[in-house]
Amino acid sequence: MSKIRPFYVMEVLERAFRMQAEGNDVIHLQMGEPDFDTPRTITQAGIRALEQKRTHYVQALGIPALRERIADYYPAPCRPPVERVVVTPGSSAGLQLVFACLLNPGDEVLLADPGYPCNNNFVHLYGGVPRGIPCNPDSNYQLTAKAIAQHWNENTRAVLIGTPSNPTGSVVPPDEMSRIANTVRRLGGRLIVDEIYHGLVYDTDVRTALFDGNDIFVVNSFSKYYGMTGWRLGWLVVPDDYIDDITRLSQNLFISASTPAQYAALHAFDAETTEELEYRRATFQRRRDYFVPALRELGFAVPLMPQGAFYVYADCSRFSTDSDTVALDLLEQALVGVAPGKDFGVYRQHEHIRFSYANAMDKLEQAVARMAGFLSRT
Amino acid sequence: MSKIRPFYVMEVLERAFRMQAEGNDVIHLQMGEPDFDTPRTITQAGIRALEQKRTHYVQALGIPALRERIADYYPAPCRPPVERVVVTPGSSAGLQLVFACLLNPGDEVLLADPGYPCNNNFVHLYGGVPRGIPCNPDSNYQLTAKAIAQHWNENTRAVLIGTPSNPTGSVVPPDEMSRIANTVRRLGGRLIVDEIYHGLVYDTDVRTALFDGNDIFVVNSFSKYYGMTGWRLGWLVVPDDYIDDITRLSQNLFISASTPAQYAALHAFDAETTEELEYRRATFQRRRDYFVPALRELGFAVPLMPQGAFYVYADCSRFSTDSDTVALDLLEQALVGVAPGKDFGVYRQHEHIRFSYANAMDKLEQAVARMAGFLSRT
Repeated sequence: MSKIRPFYVMEVLERAFRMQAEGNDVIHLQMGEPDFDTPRTITQAGIRALEQKRTHYVQALGIPALRERIADYYPAPCRPPVERVVVTPGSSAGLQLVFACLLNPGDEVLLADPGYPCNNNFVHLYGGVPRGIPCNPDSNYQLTAKAIAQHWNENTRAVLIGTPSNPTGSVVPPDEMSRIANTVRRLGGRLIVDEIYHGLVYDTDVRTALFDGNDIFVVNSFSKYYGMTGWRLGWLVVPDDYIDDITRLSQNLFISASTPAQYAALHAFDAETTEELEYRRATFQRRRDYFVPALRELGFAVPLMPQGAFYVYADCSRFSTDSDTVALDLLEQALVGVAPGKDFGVYRQHEHIRFSYANAMDKLEQAVARMAGFLSRT
Repeated sequence: MSKIRPFYVMEVLERAFRMQAEGNDVIHLQMGEPDFDTPRTITQAGIRALEQKRTHYVQALGIPALRERIADYYPAPCRPPVERVVVTPGSSAGLQLVFACLLNPGDEVLLADPGYPCNNNFVHLYGGVPRGIPCNPDSNYQLTAKAIAQHWNENTRAVLIGTPSNPTGSVVPPDEMSRIANTVRRLGGRLIVDEIYHGLVYDTDVRTALFDGNDIFVVNSFSKYYGMTGWRLGWLVVPDDYIDDITRLSQNLFISASTPAQYAALHAFDAETTEELEYRRATFQRRRDYFVPALRELGFAVPLMPQGAFYVYADCSRFSTDSDTVALDLLEQALVGVAPGKDFGVYRQHEHIRFSYANAMDKLEQAVARMAGFLSRT
């Protein structure tokens, strides 16, 4: 327990809600979820599932129809057999399954710093040791094959890549991902690729890591692109040699993922849903294209244009040597909630905060105006 | 991973489904879930939640209204403050939170053998050591204060009691639970009480372990009594000194429990729901009162009338020295699916199988007739 760190953004959130309750109009840019509701097609399918009394346990690995739809989502050259597709109660559950499977006490996992904070905690939970590797804009804030080889030691068991990354929105280019896969394979470890922001990519293409070998664990989710955060549903693509272990663990840990959520998600890949989701993606892109230049204008440094997700990892060192203070001041003085850098690692944490642009354009504009006012006063 | 055992009943289930697909009419008495659908009031509330677009993340510990309803469910003398009530994505998740909180590698947990198989695996998952204590009908198949004191050693950290028990349906009497709580407290450990079958008790009263001290972890669920298995929702009542740890872990492990499920569960305690649930309880009781004597008549030994849940843990040693064979034969020859004893521990596993009476009365009668035919032929 002593190694499990809190999610500091939750404290910001709580403080923000308290301030709201006191009558303050806080703009929430600290959130890790789309501001859009679940697409109507999916929610309607959920309602139908409940009307049809789909309220019992289902198969531990997911209902077959959903596993098939997920397999079909992948392009033909790398489409996994349905046996390798496992439905999970969110990608958090998926990552727990993978780490519980792979790690023995003392095993190390390499991850990018900055990165998603819970990943370290998942590793700790199973007695593993997360090794955050400092990552800079020059490598896209991402691990590279070279960095992995450099930091490998006899205890290294796995590498976790998040692409697009939370908090930086950066993407690992396909050729680098191939090199990473080869390197990890050569060194005798396992590669885990978190693709939960895969649908939300702008100006660039992403390629699933399934192209780079069938020995890779791929983690995905219905939360972000598909807008199903509150339903708690995700999936894994599992290498053949781990299907039995993952099955055994799923049965024990989760029994099965939410039944109505699974029936709802059957419609996540429908043409009508896709149209809505692509409209949302374009909306996120417009917001990003407004918001990142505006932040730079305010004096935040954003060396790389984020290519995916809905986050901006902004260097705020011009304003303070302590990003916690910046986060707190922005909330209390400018009524803008942001996530403090310490949530995303230790490397240069004091120089960064994370903005989310999962909010309406007028709110983003208002937030920029408020921050401009506040920063000009300080 | 090597210590995580499969859930053998899943293999039975799979085989049963295969036989069904081949045109055989299998009667499923291997199931761990009520045959009833979720009560209409709850499902309708779930539909309304979806119509109202309750599809986003909510608080990590659960929506406040549900936490309050759960707190109010407890009788006034032991009603916990709402801060101690934590909503979880099923009781499996609740148990994981508790063990992840309490255990350091090598810490031991005392549990009854026979017991719910996943419990051992949860303990293993966090590097703990489950110590199954052989339990016999003379102690209600349950741990006693005396047995706990006897088996305590310097590594013992916690005791887990399931009451009513899966697979035996036996209940720990209130005076014994008080003695157990005192003993565990005196020895410096923590008591965890799994009360997920609490609503389903017959001929007797159960008392929540919250009466026995506010240092006890109580695990509960909307799955069994409330008929919400597929929604994946449960709760914990957490001692004050563990609220922070549980909060930190919940945020990390699960983000939050299913949002539509939580809004649906707001109606689990409504008078109309309670009426339906009490009708179901009476139905389970009628089935038990028919089924247990019928099993005894067939030659199974059931030394204790199960007082709760919907299981019969039956001694089948008259028919074979290997309960696996009995389970397989019943499925293949009598088309009756049951759970093999090895799912529930090691102590006398080869002498027992578990029947579930979560099936309609006519199916139970048909199952008895089929087993009578089969057993008379062997």
